[in-house]
Amino acid sequence: MASIDLNSDVGESYGRYQLGDDAAVLDHVSSANVACGMHAGDPSTIATTVGLALARGVAIGAHPGFADLQGFGRRPMQLAPDALYHLVLYQIGALQAFCTAAGTRLAHVKAHGALYNMAVRDSAMAHAICCAVRAVDARLIFYGLAGSELVRTARAAGLTVAEEVFADRSYQDDGSLTPRTDPRAMITDIQQSVEQVLRMVRSGLVRSVHGVDVPVRPDTLCIHGDQPGAAQFAQAIRAALEAEGIAIAPITRPNG
Amino acid sequence: MASIDLNSDVGESYGRYQLGDDAAVLDHVSSANVACGMHAGDPSTIATTVGLALARGVAIGAHPGFADLQGFGRRPMQLAPDALYHLVLYQIGALQAFCTAAGTRLAHVKAHGALYNMAVRDSAMAHAICCAVRAVDARLIFYGLAGSELVRTARAAGLTVAEEVFADRSYQDDGSLTPRTDPRAMITDIQQSVEQVLRMVRSGLVRSVHGVDVPVRPDTLCIHGDQPGAAQFAQAIRAALEAEGIAIAPITRPNG
Amino acid sequence: MASIDLNSDVGESYGRYQLGDDAAVLDHVSSANVACGMHAGDPSTIATTVGLALARGVAIGAHPGFADLQGFGRRPMQLAPDALYHLVLYQIGALQAFCTAAGTRLAHVKAHGALYNMAVRDSAMAHAICCAVRAVDARLIFYGLAGSELVRTARAAGLTVAEEVFADRSYQDDGSLTPRTDPRAMITDIQQSVEQVLRMVRSGLVRSVHGVDVPVRPDTLCIHGDQPGAAQFAQAIRAALEAEGIAIAPITRPNG
Amino acid sequence: MASIDLNSDVGESYGRYQLGDDAAVLDHVSSANVACGMHAGDPSTIATTVGLALARGVAIGAHPGFADLQGFGRRPMQLAPDALYHLVLYQIGALQAFCTAAGTRLAHVKAHGALYNMAVRDSAMAHAICCAVRAVDARLIFYGLAGSELVRTARAAGLTVAEEVFADRSYQDDGSLTPRTDPRAMITDIQQSVEQVLRMVRSGLVRSVHGVDVPVRPDTLCIHGDQPGAAQFAQAIRAALEAEGIAIAPITRPNG
Repeated sequence: MASIDLNSDVGESYGRYQLGDDAAVLDHVSSANVACGMHAGDPSTIATTVGLALARGVAIGAHPGFADLQGFGRRPMQLAPDALYHLVLYQIGALQAFCTAAGTRLAHVKAHGALYNMAVRDSAMAHAICCAVRAVDARLIFYGLAGSELVRTARAAGLTVAEEVFADRSYQDDGSLTPRTDPRAMITDIQQSVEQVLRMVRSGLVRSVHGVDVPVRPDTLCIHGDQPGAAQFAQAIRAALEAEGIAIAPITRPNG
Repeated sequence: MASIDLNSDVGESYGRYQLGDDAAVLDHVSSANVACGMHAGDPSTIATTVGLALARGVAIGAHPGFADLQGFGRRPMQLAPDALYHLVLYQIGALQAFCTAAGTRLAHVKAHGALYNMAVRDSAMAHAICCAVRAVDARLIFYGLAGSELVRTARAAGLTVAEEVFADRSYQDDGSLTPRTDPRAMITDIQQSVEQVLRMVRSGLVRSVHGVDVPVRPDTLCIHGDQPGAAQFAQAIRAALEAEGIAIAPITRPNG
Repeated sequence: MASIDLNSDVGESYGRYQLGDDAAVLDHVSSANVACGMHAGDPSTIATTVGLALARGVAIGAHPGFADLQGFGRRPMQLAPDALYHLVLYQIGALQAFCTAAGTRLAHVKAHGALYNMAVRDSAMAHAICCAVRAVDARLIFYGLAGSELVRTARAAGLTVAEEVFADRSYQDDGSLTPRTDPRAMITDIQQSVEQVLRMVRSGLVRSVHGVDVPVRPDTLCIHGDQPGAAQFAQAIRAALEAEGIAIAPITRPNG
Repeated sequence: MASIDLNSDVGESYGRYQLGDDAAVLDHVSSANVACGMHAGDPSTIATTVGLALARGVAIGAHPGFADLQGFGRRPMQLAPDALYHLVLYQIGALQAFCTAAGTRLAHVKAHGALYNMAVRDSAMAHAICCAVRAVDARLIFYGLAGSELVRTARAAGLTVAEEVFADRSYQDDGSLTPRTDPRAMITDIQQSVEQVLRMVRSGLVRSVHGVDVPVRPDTLCIHGDQPGAAQFAQAIRAALEAEGIAIAPITRPNG
């Protein structure tokens, strides 16, 4: 049976500040990207989030970002590759301890925000991130934008890759996402979102904004967790996919 | 042969800010307590410090502290036990990743500053810290003030304990350290320091400031690393101990 | 005509994290205590909040707190008096610049969270805070718990004081607030809240939980801004007070 | 008599971390750029530094930087112009409060590190910084790289400008500094440094690395304070300039 992973960013609260409704979103996804305390999250939030994911059988991943709480990790920062390697290593290690303490294993790593976006285009950054993942545990699954330099770099580094697609974003002819500055960037109609995902899963193609069919490998689908209505969206897209006979399941960890 | 571990706090630089001469101190000790990025240290400093320790065959431990860079973890903070448990878990995990990446294992944990001092007297705090250590790896050796509530709590939690003694501090009749507010608190004469340690190792006794012989178990001796002349002090005390036939060696990790 | 000031803590958002509905609360109060970027708030949030207050004719005050974003300034911290003096001075200065840039003047200072609560009982802390206020501008009005050591210290330091009372908290025989650990601490019935305030304003008395009438001077009434329904509560209490002929107005700044 | 201002960055310690020997450097300069707690410095360090400067009759300026302690404000960050405006406003206000408390006035503003370097080339950033300065006090003197877009923007904003030159850096034909990646960037010979400054002061010219005479207006000379030997360099260059009949004096504040 065809299947896809649904992943969502969670654990992005910080102290007194609550962000998103993690418990609700986690009811509908198969993989959780847990913020690691740099762009968002704090040790107690991590513990709570790992507990919520574990209770629902959701696979737990680390979601490292730039050390920029005020900018929520969304502001580009220039770091030397080794500084970036250390930054990511640190965050994965922290998350791993919470998984160990909870009696489970860290399953995957997905970079956050500006770190993700910059690494999609910058192979030195991508390489630094992938080396950090591999240094901690070479069997960790690496999430990256489908068809991007980021996933090619990860594969070249020997990592198992999950290619990530989006239901609520439109695509360019080269498989990149339409920039948010373009009015066509966001897909707000849920039926259209579902159809885009269904076609990706069934035929491995996505129709670009210019009408070109672009090959894409939809291993995992990103569900934005910090938007109002995120849980409803997750539930709707899951139901629609399951109704079409597509199973929702986390990526299988390689033998090791 | 009689032996003792020499431990020192290292990796307490932060970004542009250099603190101590870690490379020199690490030449003379057997165990390194590496700051974990909360009271001091940053990911790149951790990596450098782990590398320096590994190159010298020095055992690597995590040195978690309060999340208070401005106060260098020396200001008492009131945290709920579970918040403390998460804070320590986070820091141990981060350090562990750097050990894994460097091809070694984390050997021990020693709390820093106000966290250490408060846990010596507060068994709820001590328990929270010990639970975090055990949750990550029950074979991690736990460092605590010799004879204190902290080491009793650690033992009760099933951890292997290294009881820590001081060469440059005087003792009270109950085995506690003379408070720094007392003019007799510090031992500044190196010969007197060496004699205090020798007597601890040979007879398991320390003479209190009131002339009482107090039993003490000197598993590990703390060498303060951030003072001027720290490396010279470490070298002198090591030479004096070795001249007396006492080996300097890290604590042996239990089988597991 | 009898009058009272209504004050509320605002500007406690941080970057991506929104807290409270400041615009709605500011529609109903006469004084805004703006977080200064240490326990909460950031420069852009300060600017936005000052703008919202100014547009509504609400008096703007600084709301300094401990430098503890993760604990939202609610965790007790031990600082030396001069460190505390500098911490408060820094925050008042920052707020003052935003007032100057907006063409208005800073009107008052109210300490936040653990800083407020500790200073209520600790005259050395109270003194350090008051000295910081006076050093910036001796005409700033100082808000403190009615009848407490904090307001006595402020008056002794030559500051104009606004004694603060609470509508939603019950009182002890000595005029202190009933601790939150006591089930009688909170007054949840709005009519009962209004009556407590009306009696304070009209007769200068509050009935303690033990039935004793305690003298109190209600210069300003605290409206908690970060609770759900804060704006509705502010609106209701304002309407009730105005219906009873009590004017809502900020404290008048002394000549200087 | 010909004169020049000598300025140095000071107050860049943080908590336990000491950086530079401010007391020694301040013996030899006429203007102090005090770090404001974002890229370096903390409230108590600011107070100490303001006191040291005041005791020596050194003019006190604010030295705002990016909120990046780990990178010491040297890592480029992308901020929206209004976020930058708020960030600078905040820091100037904080410094101003310490000046007020010390009975003096803030004299100037000089941006730090990456903020300075980016604003030299980016007029939107330069404009945001200048607006923040003007919003607090239009008579604050604005320091910027001689001949750069930054000083043109400041002048267009109505600010009094101090054009800054360097003794230890070589120049390009367009008056910009030779990038540090070029081996000719640094002038390490103190006699050569002095001659470069003397020629700037006397003839308003600096010889570029390509032998071209470039006009330059040397209002103020930067003395790097965080280098080993900074105080000795400051003393030597001051003595050399005074021996040539050039007075060392801060920029005069305009009437207002």
